Amino acid sequence: MRLSQYFMPILRDDPKEAEIVSHRLMLRTGMVRQESAGIYSWLPLGFRVLKKIEQIVRQEQNRAGAIEVLMPTIQSADLWRKSGRYDDYGKEMLRITDRHDRDMLYGPTNEEMITDMFRAGAQSYKDLPRNLYHIQWKFRDEVRPRFGVMRGREFLMKDAYSFDYTADGGRHSYGKMFVSYLRTYARMGLKAIPMQAETGPIGGDLSHEFLILADTGESEVHFDRDFYDMDWSEFTIDYDDPQAVSAIVNDYTSKYAATDDMHVEADFHARVPQDRRLSGRGIEVGHIFFFGDKYSQPLDCFVQTAEGGNVPILSGSYGIGVSRLAGAVIEASHDEAGIIWPEAVAPFDIGLINLKAGDSATDAACDKLYGELSSAGLEVLYDDKDDRAGGKFARMDLIGLPWQIIIGPRSLKDGNAEVKNRKTGERENVALSGIVSRFAKQG
Amino acid sequence: MRLSQYFMPILRDDPKEAEIVSHRLMLRTGMVRQESAGIYSWLPLGFRVLKKIEQIVRQEQNRAGAIEVLMPTIQSADLWRKSGRYDDYGKEMLRITDRHDRDMLYGPTNEEMITDMFRAGAQSYKDLPRNLYHIQWKFRDEVRPRFGVMRGREFLMKDAYSFDYTADGGRHSYGKMFVSYLRTYARMGLKAIPMQAETGPIGGDLSHEFLILADTGESEVHFDRDFYDMDWSEFTIDYDDPQAVSAIVNDYTSKYAATDDMHVEADFHARVPQDRRLSGRGIEVGHIFFFGDKYSQPLDCFVQTAEGGNVPILSGSYGIGVSRLAGAVIEASHDEAGIIWPEAVAPFDIGLINLKAGDSATDAACDKLYGELSSAGLEVLYDDKDDRAGGKFARMDLIGLPWQIIIGPRSLKDGNAEVKNRKTGERENVALSGIVSRFAKQG
Repeated sequence: MRLSQYFMPILRDDPKEAEIVSHRLMLRTGMVRQESAGIYSWLPLGFRVLKKIEQIVRQEQNRAGAIEVLMPTIQSADLWRKSGRYDDYGKEMLRITDRHDRDMLYGPTNEEMITDMFRAGAQSYKDLPRNLYHIQWKFRDEVRPRFGVMRGREFLMKDAYSFDYTADGGRHSYGKMFVSYLRTYARMGLKAIPMQAETGPIGGDLSHEFLILADTGESEVHFDRDFYDMDWSEFTIDYDDPQAVSAIVNDYTSKYAATDDMHVEADFHARVPQDRRLSGRGIEVGHIFFFGDKYSQPLDCFVQTAEGGNVPILSGSYGIGVSRLAGAVIEASHDEAGIIWPEAVAPFDIGLINLKAGDSATDAACDKLYGELSSAGLEVLYDDKDDRAGGKFARMDLIGLPWQIIIGPRSLKDGNAEVKNRKTGERENVALSGIVSRFAKQG
Repeated sequence: MRLSQYFMPILRDDPKEAEIVSHRLMLRTGMVRQESAGIYSWLPLGFRVLKKIEQIVRQEQNRAGAIEVLMPTIQSADLWRKSGRYDDYGKEMLRITDRHDRDMLYGPTNEEMITDMFRAGAQSYKDLPRNLYHIQWKFRDEVRPRFGVMRGREFLMKDAYSFDYTADGGRHSYGKMFVSYLRTYARMGLKAIPMQAETGPIGGDLSHEFLILADTGESEVHFDRDFYDMDWSEFTIDYDDPQAVSAIVNDYTSKYAATDDMHVEADFHARVPQDRRLSGRGIEVGHIFFFGDKYSQPLDCFVQTAEGGNVPILSGSYGIGVSRLAGAVIEASHDEAGIIWPEAVAPFDIGLINLKAGDSATDAACDKLYGELSSAGLEVLYDDKDDRAGGKFARMDLIGLPWQIIIGPRSLKDGNAEVKNRKTGERENVALSGIVSRFAKQG
């Protein structure tokens, strides 16, 4: 993409309303724009990040055997009355009356609807287990939305729902999601620590939150330093092997980690030696629940057993805040100059800077390289604008693409470009002729 | 995907509420499920079709130089009051009051919001032209939603918005979308005839609707039979060449075609010889508008000219009904046995039928082929269920995948499978060893 033809409205100054760094940087780089309190548009740069995060989440859900569907944003109040949550949810639920005076609502979550959908489509224990998920906008009418997309009112969530016949099967389904979450966050360069959590309005007795550490997090967290030293890279897993799945779950849950709600200081002391006890703040980027028949009972979601009887389906739900993750990644990865995108979620792979736009030799070299990199499947933001070098450098550092390629008349004389790694700051002169193969290999 | 692990709740009987064939087939095949009047969930089979359509629309928008963003579903009423449309829209607009008693609405379209967003991000004529689009759920509170996803209340729309400095530039932007729409529909196997159209609540004086012919269409249409004989396949185009773009626009608009609203019988007679005059019904699958400064004036969307003055930006908007297209394709392509998916939007490429699930030789042959086809990048729905052959055939015809591969003990003896083309009904015995290469080539 040529910057001269793009829409990336960078703000000259830091926006005053931003209290945390991700909010500040997302507004400054023109990733998002607030349309109303807690409601954002995703401009081109932000949209690309959102889609990359969504795609990683989707791939890992599919890999774990979940099947994608798409439920609507607007729901009837009927099912929520049946489950008893219509009143429970309080003012956070956006309630709507349609033209025929029917009570509707903007879904804050989908346990009721998916349970009803599954009930209609599954008859027998042979139709189990299943896991259905969707990636859809939700609305929670927070009394005080803030921190940009980190605590918005309209937000993109992936929510999966498992349906099982037996308690053991349900635990396996829960474990598969647990493991897939570890893989999902690892692919985005995040260390998300699973912590025992309260189940809140979703219900059930088994629940974990996944939190990444950041000073701006909304929760106080207490955990074993060992989490730092674990291997957080992607690992391979046979999801169909319950033992393999539960081994990983055990590995990550045997160490102490709890949010303030669930924290018991005496346990912490008993289980973790003093030099390994850490407390800090965390951002919730996922929350999983196993709640058994909490919804299948009131919503009549039963299946026939092999013996001809009827039993309620056992379920769990599994959420990832997709839009929130865009902010969470920035909280975890930035410096004073701006964002530092991990490669997997960067809006572009490479920023190509033409230091002297308008100079025919420099233009020709940049245009050629831009074409070649693009043909090799690399996503390049090509700064072909006629601005001063200092402004170009600052802008490219601000938006934080993993790699910069800088071409000006001086480097061109030697047939070189300068390649800069945004994260380490390392710079290197590389022959123009070798650049495509260098990045094509890495990409 | 193994059918035994999928979620595809086929209805045994035709649903009574369905008045048109696409609605009937989408419900019967378990593609969608009605959650409330005019509000649907997309089950796994339907979701795959929706995503394929969305992806074709996206690719053709990108190809035409439009840049993707994502605006929220919930909007503040403020901008709509500025443009004057808050009252105009009447009861079709879903109006919402949030917990702080602010007037909100579920966006039925986005002219106001995108104009305001663009105003904030563009200062000078050098920031033009641009075209920004998004693919997002919309809500129109139709008094009588019907025909399934063809006239739903919550629906997925692609809406693009062009921003130009000059009237000529605006015409070029309009032409690019016009041409991209022809390409988009052609890729889905649809002949969508562009017709002069009324501009309605969007406004402006230049507008075309794209309609596909179907008896169940909501509009009466009148057109030159020559449209039948035109080349509707994809064509290549240099979008940056205004002459090339307008040549195609002229080619498709020089022949008579009008919806009833715009139809003038005398013109029809004057321009089309009697034997080429056709009238019928059509389904609207796209609508494009050029409305100049209708929104930029009230919303203060001005840019600085080269001379230092200020002029309002000239705009158009360009919509495609993404969810509606799933129904429209079925209206255009089905037979008595069910849906006939064009390859580009089929939920799977191939349906693999195991005629004797449980028989070890047949299972082994089918499992092997399923693995090989999947590895070759083909999307296969593998019917591994223990049902009778007749039911399997009927089900596979009903869901309408382009190709069926049928394997039973008898064909296996000769090392063969039967390959059936869903559209033509042609069947052929093919050696198992040659099947992957045959489809890998086609796919």
